[in-house]
Amino acid sequence: MKKKLINWIKKEVKQANAKGIVLGLSGGLDSSVIAALTKEAVGEKKLLCLILPCSSLKKDLKDAHMIARWLKVETKQIDLTNIYNKLLKILPNAVFLAKANLKPRLRMLVLYYFANKMNYLVCGTGNKSELMMGYFTKHGDGATDILPIGDLTKTEVRRLARELGIPENIITKPPSAGLWQGQTDEGEMGIAYPEIDDILDRIEKKQRQVLPKNKVNKVKQRISESEHKRKGPKICYM
Amino acid sequence: MKKKLINWIKKEVKQANAKGIVLGLSGGLDSSVIAALTKEAVGEKKLLCLILPCSSLKKDLKDAHMIARWLKVETKQIDLTNIYNKLLKILPNAVFLAKANLKPRLRMLVLYYFANKMNYLVCGTGNKSELMMGYFTKHGDGATDILPIGDLTKTEVRRLARELGIPENIITKPPSAGLWQGQTDEGEMGIAYPEIDDILDRIEKKQRQVLPKNKVNKVKQRISESEHKRKGPKICYM
Repeated sequence: MKKKLINWIKKEVKQANAKGIVLGLSGGLDSSVIAALTKEAVGEKKLLCLILPCSSLKKDLKDAHMIARWLKVETKQIDLTNIYNKLLKILPNAVFLAKANLKPRLRMLVLYYFANKMNYLVCGTGNKSELMMGYFTKHGDGATDILPIGDLTKTEVRRLARELGIPENIITKPPSAGLWQGQTDEGEMGIAYPEIDDILDRIEKKQRQVLPKNKVNKVKQRISESEHKRKGPKICYM
Repeated sequence: MKKKLINWIKKEVKQANAKGIVLGLSGGLDSSVIAALTKEAVGEKKLLCLILPCSSLKKDLKDAHMIARWLKVETKQIDLTNIYNKLLKILPNAVFLAKANLKPRLRMLVLYYFANKMNYLVCGTGNKSELMMGYFTKHGDGATDILPIGDLTKTEVRRLARELGIPENIITKPPSAGLWQGQTDEGEMGIAYPEIDDILDRIEKKQRQVLPKNKVNKVKQRISESEHKRKGPKICYM
């Protein structure tokens, strides 16, 4: 699997005539795995890891820098907190989620600024569990050029992380989008990743579901409601 | 055609359980047509037209307000020039295009802020000629929920504009993305819309091309090179 992913990344960079890869390093599992894979694929000289705090937790920042040191890859840190606060000042008051979604979208702006400047591809860090559950920001962290682990469930990404030797504290820390203090993926979705992944696997293999019906229905409903987030804009065909 | 588009917009808003539509009004032809169509589809009370200058030309701003008055629709103007300049200050120097692309991406952030806040759909204004030529910013003006005129060439949009009674000076002014002074679509692409649209039509109908080979090749090359901009991120399937 590791070999296939690395070769696929190499092929995508070559096909796009790109000079390298830029990614956002959050201190979480998925971006650590992506940093390790892309470093193997293009080498550290063609890899730019951006650390983009936006009122982020100090612990996550520390983890992002630790992973970069462990991988021996260059990073550039750009703090978006001030820009985020200035943006909120010119926008009328909104619900919590509208504000939170600005953060991954601002990060996307910066990733593409570097990608445009350097002729790099933006490498996304989303996995299949997040994609299928719609647990990402449309046109934010969902807006990338390539998504190497987009067909791996969180369970598979964890397995891959161990194969890559990612430090154990990164593998076991509770997954979080880091948009606010105390946010965790599983808490917000109301279902644990092993459950999501078991349900997704059984849907794909058309096997009988064994988990409680309310959990299976929750996953199916989220898959259906988030379909628009996995597709381009809808066009009215004549 | 007008009727079909209006019904399609109505259907999309209903299917998404959305409460209305938000769009960016630039003072150009496409967004004027979209404003007229969406007003017919959802009514002016469920339509929010945002005017989002970002070191924009005064002439375009004036045209945007003129169209809004003509249509009798509510607008909200939010000037992004300061935020844009502040963003450039925290980013390292980059080529011209990397900077210009920040503008439509910043506008996207604001459109989605209102969409999230009000449970509205973001309506894009791109047409088929732009889409096929890749003449838009990926994850910027290309990042929307619905694209009603995405299957109409610029020539067809102009015809529709006359049907809708859009003021003639909007229909005849040279199309521009308005990212810098003097920018025009046709100047930048090096080919005129009637030519692009004739070539696109003939490709679709598998007819013999009649325009010079270098123009046909230019269009074909742009279609192929911009394919990634019309699709979601590429996934490595296992």
